[in-house]
Amino acid sequence: MINLSRDPIFPKGEKVVSKSFIGDAWLQMLAPGDYIFNCPMYNVTFEPGARNNWHKHPGGQILLVTDGKGFYQEEGKPARLIQAGDVIRIYPGVKHWHGATVNSQLAHVGITTNPQKGDVEWLEPVTDEEYNNCFTD
Amino acid sequence: MINLSRDPIFPKGEKVVSKSFIGDAWLQMLAPGDYIFNCPMYNVTFEPGARNNWHKHPGGQILLVTDGKGFYQEEGKPARLIQAGDVIRIYPGVKHWHGATVNSQLAHVGITTNPQKGDVEWLEPVTDEEYNNCFTD
Repeated sequence: MINLSRDPIFPKGEKVVSKSFIGDAWLQMLAPGDYIFNCPMYNVTFEPGARNNWHKHPGGQILLVTDGKGFYQEEGKPARLIQAGDVIRIYPGVKHWHGATVNSQLAHVGITTNPQKGDVEWLEPVTDEEYNNCFTD
Repeated sequence: MINLSRDPIFPKGEKVVSKSFIGDAWLQMLAPGDYIFNCPMYNVTFEPGARNNWHKHPGGQILLVTDGKGFYQEEGKPARLIQAGDVIRIYPGVKHWHGATVNSQLAHVGITTNPQKGDVEWLEPVTDEEYNNCFTD
């Protein structure tokens, strides 16, 4: 199934233009990164096969998966299949990536926790070999 | 329409037992209130007519409305009709309440921002007169 299972709750937003993504993804900010709330939130939609590079968040991140299917992987661990209703808590400094499966979109809300601790650190791409290994873990 | 328009993304959880609510509401924690993420998140579902008391959050709160219809009101302002896709940013210390309309459930994810600043301060109930005024604002 290529498409999401329901009408999106939040807007898909703009196509992501970034060297830190493979494939097509869409980004809609839901709450800005200000110093009143300290809680930037965004809706991310990955097209089938799309994923972000390995990266780290100095203050952590939480993902609320709202539709579709995808993968979440931490360095040194097998990839985990994720889908609507899953809540992913990514501890500060843990190297990881996330993205859609090859056959489905993935939509999640992302929350950057403790944003005062610094910006995301983008690392190397998830290779096709790493990505294809998800399906045989 | 009494029911939500789609299957819930997150579990409905347990019925809220609290003197600070009128009517029936359900609570499912999505992320705990720890000092690593500083980002407690919870799914709240209000049955038709249900609402919480007036209250304040010392560090603020953000609501992501995921389904149904409801009201959000800040002290001294008219109530605002809210529905799926709405993002409500409640500034620290602002007295407010939220709940369902009389004919619909309301489901939202709540995020307590800056939880280090202290716990919610519960105040007086939203009277039937205040609640019924929502429909004529």
